[in-house]
Amino acid sequence: TPVRLLSSPPLDPPSDKSSFLSLFPSLATSLSNDPTTQDLHPHLSSHISSLLHYTVPGGKMNRGLSVPATYQLLVPPSPTNTTSQQLHLASVLGWTVELLQAFFLVADDIMDESVTRRGQPCWYKKQEIGLGAFNDSIILETCVYSIIRTHFRSEPYYLDLLENMLEVTKFTTYGQSLDTLSAHNFTQVKGQPNSLDSFDMSRYTAIVKYKTSYYSFYLPVVMAMNMAGIKDPELFEGAKTILLEIGHYFQVTDDFLDCFGDPAVTGKVGTDIQDGKCSWIVVKALEKASDEQKNILALHYGSQTEEDVKVVKDLYDQLGLVEIYKTYESEFYTDIMEHIEEVCAGKAVPKEVFTTFLNKVYKRTK
Amino acid sequence: TPVRLLSSPPLDPPSDKSSFLSLFPSLATSLSNDPTTQDLHPHLSSHISSLLHYTVPGGKMNRGLSVPATYQLLVPPSPTNTTSQQLHLASVLGWTVELLQAFFLVADDIMDESVTRRGQPCWYKKQEIGLGAFNDSIILETCVYSIIRTHFRSEPYYLDLLENMLEVTKFTTYGQSLDTLSAHNFTQVKGQPNSLDSFDMSRYTAIVKYKTSYYSFYLPVVMAMNMAGIKDPELFEGAKTILLEIGHYFQVTDDFLDCFGDPAVTGKVGTDIQDGKCSWIVVKALEKASDEQKNILALHYGSQTEEDVKVVKDLYDQLGLVEIYKTYESEFYTDIMEHIEEVCAGKAVPKEVFTTFLNKVYKRTK
Ligand SMILES: [Mg+2]
Ligand SMILES: [Mg+2]
Ligand SMILES: [Mg+2]
Ligand SMILES: [Mg+2]
Ligand SMILES: [Mg+2]
Ligand SMILES: [Mg+2]
Repeated sequence: TPVRLLSSPPLDPPSDKSSFLSLFPSLATSLSNDPTTQDLHPHLSSHISSLLHYTVPGGKMNRGLSVPATYQLLVPPSPTNTTSQQLHLASVLGWTVELLQAFFLVADDIMDESVTRRGQPCWYKKQEIGLGAFNDSIILETCVYSIIRTHFRSEPYYLDLLENMLEVTKFTTYGQSLDTLSAHNFTQVKGQPNSLDSFDMSRYTAIVKYKTSYYSFYLPVVMAMNMAGIKDPELFEGAKTILLEIGHYFQVTDDFLDCFGDPAVTGKVGTDIQDGKCSWIVVKALEKASDEQKNILALHYGSQTEEDVKVVKDLYDQLGLVEIYKTYESEFYTDIMEHIEEVCAGKAVPKEVFTTFLNKVYKRTK
Repeated sequence: TPVRLLSSPPLDPPSDKSSFLSLFPSLATSLSNDPTTQDLHPHLSSHISSLLHYTVPGGKMNRGLSVPATYQLLVPPSPTNTTSQQLHLASVLGWTVELLQAFFLVADDIMDESVTRRGQPCWYKKQEIGLGAFNDSIILETCVYSIIRTHFRSEPYYLDLLENMLEVTKFTTYGQSLDTLSAHNFTQVKGQPNSLDSFDMSRYTAIVKYKTSYYSFYLPVVMAMNMAGIKDPELFEGAKTILLEIGHYFQVTDDFLDCFGDPAVTGKVGTDIQDGKCSWIVVKALEKASDEQKNILALHYGSQTEEDVKVVKDLYDQLGLVEIYKTYESEFYTDIMEHIEEVCAGKAVPKEVFTTFLNKVYKRTK
C-alpha cells in the first residue's frame, strides 16, 4: 500500500552492519560454485560453503565495514554519481578484508592450539577437519582473489587492489612469524633472569605494525582510496603513517585493558602476564625498572601461579604503569590529530576518514 | 691468457640445471632482506634465509627449469634479440614455480604428518619449528609475489603472471582439499564392503588435474608463453589441454610404477595399496571387476597386512592390469601427438614445447 511505502525506511546503506552482512550469502554461494572449476563442484562445493559460513561472518566486521564507510567519505553521494552501485562494490571489497582475516585466524588458531573462536570451536577442532584446516585457510585466501577478479577485473584500479592485498598478506605473515619466534624464544628462557631481554619497544612496535595494523587499519582505507581513484603518493604515505599509528594505539590499549581493564566491562579476564606476552605494559615496565626490579620481573613473568602474577602486578603498581599509560594516551591523541591535520591539509581526503576510526577506538574501555 | 679464453666453454644457458641453481643464493638473499620491511631484518632475515635454503632447492627442479627451457623454444636466440637477459628473467620466473611448490610441500608434509622430504627431516619436524611451519609455508608463497613484483613490475605481462600464479594456487589448493576429503572418507569406511564406492575415474581425474598437473605442467609453460608475448587465447587453451593430459599420464605412470615398478630401478617400495590411495590402478580394477571381485577388493584394500596386500595384487593380476596400462599408454601417445599437431599447426608455438615434456616422461621406468 502507498502508506506502507511512504513509511518504510530508506534502504540501509551498505556501510551499515546488517546490510553488509546481507551480501555474504550470495558471495559464499558464488565462491563455493566457482565457474572455473565446474568439475569440482560435486566433490567440493558443500565443503567450501561450510568453511565460508563457519569461519568468515560472526566477528565485529569492523575491518570489512571500513571499506564502504571510507569510500562513502571519499566519494560522497551526489546527483552526478551512481553511488549505490559503487557502494555495493566497496562492500564486496570489504568482504575480501574479512576473508583475509578469516584466512589468518583459521591458521593462527591451529598454530596457537586455540580451542574456541567467537564462541564456537575453532574450525580445525571440528572432528572431520583436523590439520586439513590449514589447506582450508589457504582456500579462504584464494577466495580473496576470486572475488577481486570477478568483481573488479575491468576496473582501472584492479592491479592496485591485487598489489594491496599481496603486500598486506606478506606483511601480516611476517608479523606472525616475528610473533611466533618471539614467543618461542621466551619459552626457552622462561623463569630465568634474562627471560625478558628481548622484550623491547622496537620488537613490540614491529610485531604490532606487521601482525595487526597493516591488515586491520591500513588495508581497508588504502583499498577504498584506490577505488576512489586517488593517485597522490603523498596521500597514501600520509594515510599509512596515520593508520599504523592508530593501529599501534589500538594494540597498546588492548594490552592495557588485558591487565588493568574491568572484566565486568571487557567481558574477559586477561592472561597476558601468565602467557608471557610481549605486551606494551611489560615493555614499558622494563623501560622504567631498576636492574633489581627487572630481575624480579624476569623471574616471575610468564607463570601461571597466582603468586607470580601478584609479584608482577605489584611491580606494575610500584612503577606507576596506569599513569604512564594515561600520559601515552593523551600524547598520542595530540600527535595523531596534528598528523591528521598535516596529511589532509588541502588534499582530497577529508579528516573524517581518520577521525572516524580514531573515535571508534580512542579511550575505549572494552 | 688468450689460449684459455679460447678454450673455455661458452656459459651454460640458464635452462641448464647447475646454472639455474646458481641463481638461487642471490634470490634468497634479496628475499630475506626485503627492502619494504627493513625494520624486520634484525628479527627475521636469518629465519627466512634458513627457510628458503632448507625448503626450496634440492628437488629435481624440473618445473622451474621448464620456464627458461620453454621460453628458449618460443623465442630462439637470434642476432636481433637480447636473449641472455630474457633467459635470465625466465629463470628467475622458474624459481617462482619452485617457491610455489615449496609452499605446497611444506604445508602438505605437516598435514600428511610426513617425516622426511628429499632425504632430510621435513621442515616442521625440526625441533625449533613445529606448527610455525604453517606460517613459514605462507612466507614461501609471499616470496613468489615479491619476486614477480621486483623483476617483472614494468613488463607488459606483469598482470598476466600474477593472474597465472593466483589461479594455479587456487586450483592446487582445491586439489589438495579434494585429495584430503577423499582420503578422509576412505578412512571412515576402510575394510567395509562399500569402502571403494567413491573411487571412480571422475574423482581420480579431478584430483590429478587440480592437485598436480596445473602447477607442474601448465604453469611453467603458460608463464613462458606470457613472457614471450603470446596473446592468442586458442593457443593458451590448446596448451592447457595438452599439458593437463601429459600431467594425467605422468600421474598414471606414477601409480603404475608404485604397484608394478621395479624397486631396484624406482628406488622405492610402493605403498599405495596399504595407504588406501585413490590410485589409477585401483580405479581401473574397479571398472573391470565383477561385483564379487569388487567386494573382495573393498574388504582388503587399504590394509597394512601382507595377506591383504597379496589378495589385492592377485586380483590386479587376474584383471590384467599390466595389459590395461600398456594399452592406455600407447593410446595416450597416439592421442597426445595428434593433439600437439592440431594445436601447433600454423601457430607461434613449436611442437617441441610439448614433445620435450613428453619425451621426459613417456615410458619412464622410475
Ligand atoms: Mg592466536
Ligand atoms: Mg598466534
Ligand atoms: Mg590482548
Ligand atoms: Mg604428502
Ligand atoms: Mg597430502
Ligand atoms: Mg605415487
